[in-house]
Amino acid sequence: MSKFEVNILGCGSALPTSRHYPSSQVLNVKDKLFMIDAGEGAQQQFRRMGLKFNLLQHIFISHLHGDHCFGLPGLLSSLSMLGRTGELVIHAYGELENIIRPILDYFCRDMDYQVRINPISPRKNELIYEDRSVQVFTIPLKHGIPTCGFLFEEKKRDAHIIRDLIDFYQVPVKEIAKIKAGSDFVTPDGEIVPNNRLTTPAAEPKKYAYCSDTGYSEKIIPIIEGVDLLFHEATFMQEDLAKAKETFHSSAGQAAEIARKASVKKLLIGHYSARYEDIAPLLKEAQNVFPDTVAAYEGMCISV
Amino acid sequence: MSKFEVNILGCGSALPTSRHYPSSQVLNVKDKLFMIDAGEGAQQQFRRMGLKFNLLQHIFISHLHGDHCFGLPGLLSSLSMLGRTGELVIHAYGELENIIRPILDYFCRDMDYQVRINPISPRKNELIYEDRSVQVFTIPLKHGIPTCGFLFEEKKRDAHIIRDLIDFYQVPVKEIAKIKAGSDFVTPDGEIVPNNRLTTPAAEPKKYAYCSDTGYSEKIIPIIEGVDLLFHEATFMQEDLAKAKETFHSSAGQAAEIARKASVKKLLIGHYSARYEDIAPLLKEAQNVFPDTVAAYEGMCISV
Repeated sequence: MSKFEVNILGCGSALPTSRHYPSSQVLNVKDKLFMIDAGEGAQQQFRRMGLKFNLLQHIFISHLHGDHCFGLPGLLSSLSMLGRTGELVIHAYGELENIIRPILDYFCRDMDYQVRINPISPRKNELIYEDRSVQVFTIPLKHGIPTCGFLFEEKKRDAHIIRDLIDFYQVPVKEIAKIKAGSDFVTPDGEIVPNNRLTTPAAEPKKYAYCSDTGYSEKIIPIIEGVDLLFHEATFMQEDLAKAKETFHSSAGQAAEIARKASVKKLLIGHYSARYEDIAPLLKEAQNVFPDTVAAYEGMCISV
Repeated sequence: MSKFEVNILGCGSALPTSRHYPSSQVLNVKDKLFMIDAGEGAQQQFRRMGLKFNLLQHIFISHLHGDHCFGLPGLLSSLSMLGRTGELVIHAYGELENIIRPILDYFCRDMDYQVRINPISPRKNELIYEDRSVQVFTIPLKHGIPTCGFLFEEKKRDAHIIRDLIDFYQVPVKEIAKIKAGSDFVTPDGEIVPNNRLTTPAAEPKKYAYCSDTGYSEKIIPIIEGVDLLFHEATFMQEDLAKAKETFHSSAGQAAEIARKASVKKLLIGHYSARYEDIAPLLKEAQNVFPDTVAAYEGMCISV
């Protein structure tokens, strides 16, 4: 099965602690790496997790709060020192251009690669990136400033041909691509061999949704419905709901409520407030509502 | 004895590794904290070492390479979130103003404290800060861009009075300050009691010199002569001297040579290149020239 896994570089919130780094994740899709948010220390965690800098393709920034992007200058400088060439695309609210460009101009004068900001509209749900194997859509979130989550959706893959039967029916090579894509096969005698006799279906395309930072918002449900894995922030406990509302964050219970209503397969919580020394109660609160919940931790690698 | 100790938050160089953080130290002078350089992750290491944010008084930045200042945005934001008030002074090359101000304006709009940049002249050896107990001088260094080290010099303290003899000679209270400062005492009968009979001398003022980043430069010797502790960068091994020269850095052997020629009491090396997995050979190289050398490591606290 092809790789589709989430690496947790940091799952703390605004105030870093000795237990947690600020937000950063790396999605590995068939050894192509997509970074989601880049809090301070992201480059060091990236290295600690044994990820390869040359496989990093795109960076997606949910919003311009420091705990989601202060790791960019260090990461981009290090990529330069490591001799990167070509282009690196950062998908983010366009304002990032005005913030990051002066830093790059001052600190990375001799860069051999280009940083391109793809300005996204956090208030829309739209396709912002695609390649042969994955599509990425924005998910508008409810936060104090323009913020979006990201839905990573694998493309439907071709069916696998059954070699023995292909040989048996003497299917010409030029027909094979069509059969993989779903066509039936017609023999020279006019016999129709149905596609499902010649192929086994490909695995269902995987879907990963990243939703942080956000207050409770049912508007995201149609977008994330049925995803294999939902990362939803769970900054607070239910008992601190007033604080959550005030700061446009969610409680663990609310994250689970969204997961339940969207019928996702699994929920991953994180973005823990520094006030909680132990996150077990947050996990328990979520599991009471949505049993298939796991708690993110630094160094975690979870297969979607 | 009053506190005068160096905490090592990071002692790696430009490219962070999983073993080392980029440059940052905290000097603790009688529970007043002075940060020297602020590489990425400085705030997290600060917390890990159990240092108190509210005791942080001043930040000194040696030069504007990312590995010496990319930790500032996160640290300054966190101080704001922690409710700091008053003023925080950053002593640095004036250009920092143009870099850090837009970041603070964008990310820390509601700060309740002021960040003031004190623009320093890295090419001069001059007093840039003093308070009741310490003076700080710049040390011009030899690097690709304007760079200076910092000499922290404790002020001479008053002698300790010997209470029994003060009582014996019935010294009036108003005379005590003068005696502490070095005066003899004249009794009502005209007898002269020499100062050294009434006092024990205060401990010698401590001196700490921080020299990073720099190529080999004997010009610093008169400034750092005889300091109790010298931190001198030792980015490379002697065998990589060509690389050291090219990048305006020093070898461990050169750091030790400076320590020897300046007759310092102890040498602390750091700013290790990412190429060395093991720093024992760097330490050995330095100790061959200057035996009283120790190697910095993250989490180290060394009393000066």
